[in-house]
Amino acid sequence: MSLTPDQLAEIEAARATPRPTLRAVSEGMEAHLYRAHEVLDHGLVRVIDYMGDDSAIVQAARVSYGAGTKHVQNDEGLIRYLMRHWHSTPFEMCEVKLHVKLPVFVARQWIRHRTANVNEYSARYSILDREFYIPEPSQLAAQSTVNNQGRGAVLSGEESARVLELLKSDAARSYDHYEAMLSQDGQQGLARELARMNLPMNIYTQWYWKTDLHNLFHFLRLRADAHAQYEIRVYAEIIAAITRDWVPLAFAAFEDYRMGGVTLSGKAIAVLKRRLAGEAVAQETSGMSKGEWREFVEVWG
Amino acid sequence: MSLTPDQLAEIEAARATPRPTLRAVSEGMEAHLYRAHEVLDHGLVRVIDYMGDDSAIVQAARVSYGAGTKHVQNDEGLIRYLMRHWHSTPFEMCEVKLHVKLPVFVARQWIRHRTANVNEYSARYSILDREFYIPEPSQLAAQSTVNNQGRGAVLSGEESARVLELLKSDAARSYDHYEAMLSQDGQQGLARELARMNLPMNIYTQWYWKTDLHNLFHFLRLRADAHAQYEIRVYAEIIAAITRDWVPLAFAAFEDYRMGGVTLSGKAIAVLKRRLAGEAVAQETSGMSKGEWREFVEVWG
Amino acid sequence: MSLTPDQLAEIEAARATPRPTLRAVSEGMEAHLYRAHEVLDHGLVRVIDYMGDDSAIVQAARVSYGAGTKHVQNDEGLIRYLMRHWHSTPFEMCEVKLHVKLPVFVARQWIRHRTANVNEYSARYSILDREFYIPEPSQLAAQSTVNNQGRGAVLSGEESARVLELLKSDAARSYDHYEAMLSQDGQQGLARELARMNLPMNIYTQWYWKTDLHNLFHFLRLRADAHAQYEIRVYAEIIAAITRDWVPLAFAAFEDYRMGGVTLSGKAIAVLKRRLAGEAVAQETSGMSKGEWREFVEVWG
Amino acid sequence: MSLTPDQLAEIEAARATPRPTLRAVSEGMEAHLYRAHEVLDHGLVRVIDYMGDDSAIVQAARVSYGAGTKHVQNDEGLIRYLMRHWHSTPFEMCEVKLHVKLPVFVARQWIRHRTANVNEYSARYSILDREFYIPEPSQLAAQSTVNNQGRGAVLSGEESARVLELLKSDAARSYDHYEAMLSQDGQQGLARELARMNLPMNIYTQWYWKTDLHNLFHFLRLRADAHAQYEIRVYAEIIAAITRDWVPLAFAAFEDYRMGGVTLSGKAIAVLKRRLAGEAVAQETSGMSKGEWREFVEVWG
Repeated sequence: MSLTPDQLAEIEAARATPRPTLRAVSEGMEAHLYRAHEVLDHGLVRVIDYMGDDSAIVQAARVSYGAGTKHVQNDEGLIRYLMRHWHSTPFEMCEVKLHVKLPVFVARQWIRHRTANVNEYSARYSILDREFYIPEPSQLAAQSTVNNQGRGAVLSGEESARVLELLKSDAARSYDHYEAMLSQDGQQGLARELARMNLPMNIYTQWYWKTDLHNLFHFLRLRADAHAQYEIRVYAEIIAAITRDWVPLAFAAFEDYRMGGVTLSGKAIAVLKRRLAGEAVAQETSGMSKGEWREFVEVWG
Repeated sequence: MSLTPDQLAEIEAARATPRPTLRAVSEGMEAHLYRAHEVLDHGLVRVIDYMGDDSAIVQAARVSYGAGTKHVQNDEGLIRYLMRHWHSTPFEMCEVKLHVKLPVFVARQWIRHRTANVNEYSARYSILDREFYIPEPSQLAAQSTVNNQGRGAVLSGEESARVLELLKSDAARSYDHYEAMLSQDGQQGLARELARMNLPMNIYTQWYWKTDLHNLFHFLRLRADAHAQYEIRVYAEIIAAITRDWVPLAFAAFEDYRMGGVTLSGKAIAVLKRRLAGEAVAQETSGMSKGEWREFVEVWG
Repeated sequence: MSLTPDQLAEIEAARATPRPTLRAVSEGMEAHLYRAHEVLDHGLVRVIDYMGDDSAIVQAARVSYGAGTKHVQNDEGLIRYLMRHWHSTPFEMCEVKLHVKLPVFVARQWIRHRTANVNEYSARYSILDREFYIPEPSQLAAQSTVNNQGRGAVLSGEESARVLELLKSDAARSYDHYEAMLSQDGQQGLARELARMNLPMNIYTQWYWKTDLHNLFHFLRLRADAHAQYEIRVYAEIIAAITRDWVPLAFAAFEDYRMGGVTLSGKAIAVLKRRLAGEAVAQETSGMSKGEWREFVEVWG
Repeated sequence: MSLTPDQLAEIEAARATPRPTLRAVSEGMEAHLYRAHEVLDHGLVRVIDYMGDDSAIVQAARVSYGAGTKHVQNDEGLIRYLMRHWHSTPFEMCEVKLHVKLPVFVARQWIRHRTANVNEYSARYSILDREFYIPEPSQLAAQSTVNNQGRGAVLSGEESARVLELLKSDAARSYDHYEAMLSQDGQQGLARELARMNLPMNIYTQWYWKTDLHNLFHFLRLRADAHAQYEIRVYAEIIAAITRDWVPLAFAAFEDYRMGGVTLSGKAIAVLKRRLAGEAVAQETSGMSKGEWREFVEVWG
């Protein structure tokens, strides 16, 4: 993705004029404001606004728990305590607003996170740009044979080239025909709300997306996960890096307890306890299904 | 849309075996259960389940207002009172679950109603069917010249034929290439989560959609409205007809106060009062903008 | 309510150190930050943080509608258009966080607005202060004889005095006993989570409450309304005044279309049209119930 | 709590007349419909309505995952898979509506679960009954010395008797004064919306509460937990027992993965792996805080 000179000038203008505020300020986040982080071939993530910082989380928690929080000596300890005990409301006191440009099939996954505010570019009102996501060859992978919703080995060069050629030519032809249908040159021109149906789902759309930190963490846990589709994961990874700069203490707690943590079932706890007691446990005696055992062994060996 | 014999048999089997329940039963809704209402060329709406009826609304209101509701003589009067005064919580006590098959560009509008539960067919897991929405020629309209998001005159026969030919051939070619990319015949076969990006937005998807009556009314007010895009409006109209059979009293109140009602601004009230007092008011002296005046005159002449 | 010197010093310290930010700044809102607006006898409202301003609403709308909004010449016109047509998502792009101190029976109404984030002072963790809402004599009104949930005439001086004496002495005694049960002086001391159950619902609690502008407007429409209970209405009125300073254009549109507007049913539209045509319409020929007619006449005479 | 003969007759009448339905029926849940489960001294939980059963969860999942779910051999395996992988939307396809009578201080905790529909008895409209929660002596515990929000040892008989006497006499006096203020005998009578503020928070209120199974599980995980306050936990335990009868497969998965499961941080995983490798790890070398280590040792010894 390359921003136009106009867009770059607009971003620089917005960044050139700091104004005084009495609100909580996160220096780490100020450095990101308006700057475009490039994602995929034409996508972007930009921070448009934010509310709160690590201190805002602590402040809200102390309203709730009053003198009860005084024994926790510092902000980091309190934030870790809140995260460990699923006290989610203090994290809801921070908010972020992002500008995201992304392929439609990614937007369709993303929008399933309902606790967020969204303003999406409307193809009823306006004409979409000729920009399509075409994967890097290294991302063109075969259907996984073990995971119904995953990818396996990268395609061979020849098959990969065939796929790329199909994706590119279909996108170009669909967009040519989109323009041809809209054209008012010698004809009436089809309504935009109808013409758009001819466009493939790798076309880029854009939106403003606003959510609170608790729901953002939930989004990141699911979408920055290794099982998420690559094309949404790269967005989640960039947003995770931004969030680390915004609220470093909260992000560190999130990383330890959520991203780097695991949930054990009652059965899994029992197996681990038997192992700790020196017993060798096999799937057959674990009480777990084969699928569950496979996932358990991935973590615990 | 024509259901397969298998699908029809499955529906008939489900309808053949009533079971006793102690729950509230709406006879009007029982008649709809599982039956497919056809929409557009391949779409459908089916009622999968429901909770509550008109009496359930009244019952919940009487829990809230206790003896305070005794002076309202009958259920119809109470339901009208609740609707008139925006007491929305009693309507939330009814719930409906629908199976809907719809084009992706319609699904993208629909999903913006966030207070609902959704399970959509996943094109990461499974292969989409070769079914595309191709409009009737009578629906192929030009871009409106007065409304940025609307349709104007129907296209001429020749232009219409060109559009249909483009929509059909692009859909067919995109789907052929989708299959070609997925194929494991002599090649590895591209992952489903990638191949789907080549499909145009008039392909059909399907989902289970569950919401409460209050939020359903909100959906219907926006989507069964004359300004909604035709392709979502036809779904809303069928769901409205189903809802009338399900909760006839609540639906009648909704029709009178929401569908058939209008909201007047303070400025519009002032103009109507001047008119009622015999004064002729023009846009220039109304305090309204031209756009607002145009909308006002549409209703009041 | 009188703030302690410590609290005042803390507020002044927070207000003394503006910091530079690149975010949208609302000068009107900066003037409110942290300052305590007194409400009732011991309550308060303070702005802790905010995100966005009128321009942020316009900016989000232009993302959605793209070139389609260019014909609207100015921000005010666009904001009025959005409000008139119930385009709520651009208003969701602004967010506010308030510190509120309020009686528990008011908090119980307030919390029914579900789309908000809340951190309330916890009486499981901490001990509540000895602060109770005791109404002004001018607010001690009799039960309304026409409205099941309203107030009628102000109580006579003698009855009013009896009521105040009961409220004061019961509050004092309950709190004395709360302290007696908690005391660890010569006894174990009851758990805080149990002792609190003895406190009456006019005791003050406090919370941080965060919501977006769309949902704030919904709150204000219901709670700043003449039919809302006085004790929550005074909070809503102060928040309304703050909101006017924060987003003056959006608030003006809200006032015209929501606060100062009315919703007419289909029946009411028909009656008004008959009146405009010179017909005298009575309740009997209006198609409306007596209650509905009474409300209609209140507006239209 | 003892139901009045009228209430019992009403329940029996509702249970006496099963009607045929084509909807999914849960036999286990039909047995509960309308029956009052007694909780605390005057509280109750009653199932008013429900939607769906275990099969409805599976059905919704198969819509989403299509052919991708065929390899899971049975419903139980699929439901466990969904629970393990946090696929929450299929569980949202079931819904339940309860009638609950509960003390106000319990209602104030409960209402913080925002994703639910509620109609509460309104003390603006109606007069509350003279019913207060007075704990069993065995529940009168001292403030915990290790947990800011918990209970410690049961109070001695003498202290316990003093507490009970205070709770009872304050409740009785407050209610006497509530009635005295409302009385229209020789005076105007204070408005109900004002008089209610004199009532203590152990008075009983009631509501209809409706939520989906996913959010119900979330409620149960937090409120049926050993750290939840006893007075809300007894409600959660009864609802858990009802849910087991309603959706036995989903409940069993919930019990194994959520109620009986634990979440481990990255640090905790590392410690367990070191232990499994035979190393003795102490708090000092664990990387955990003392509080975190204490919680870790509670589970793992």
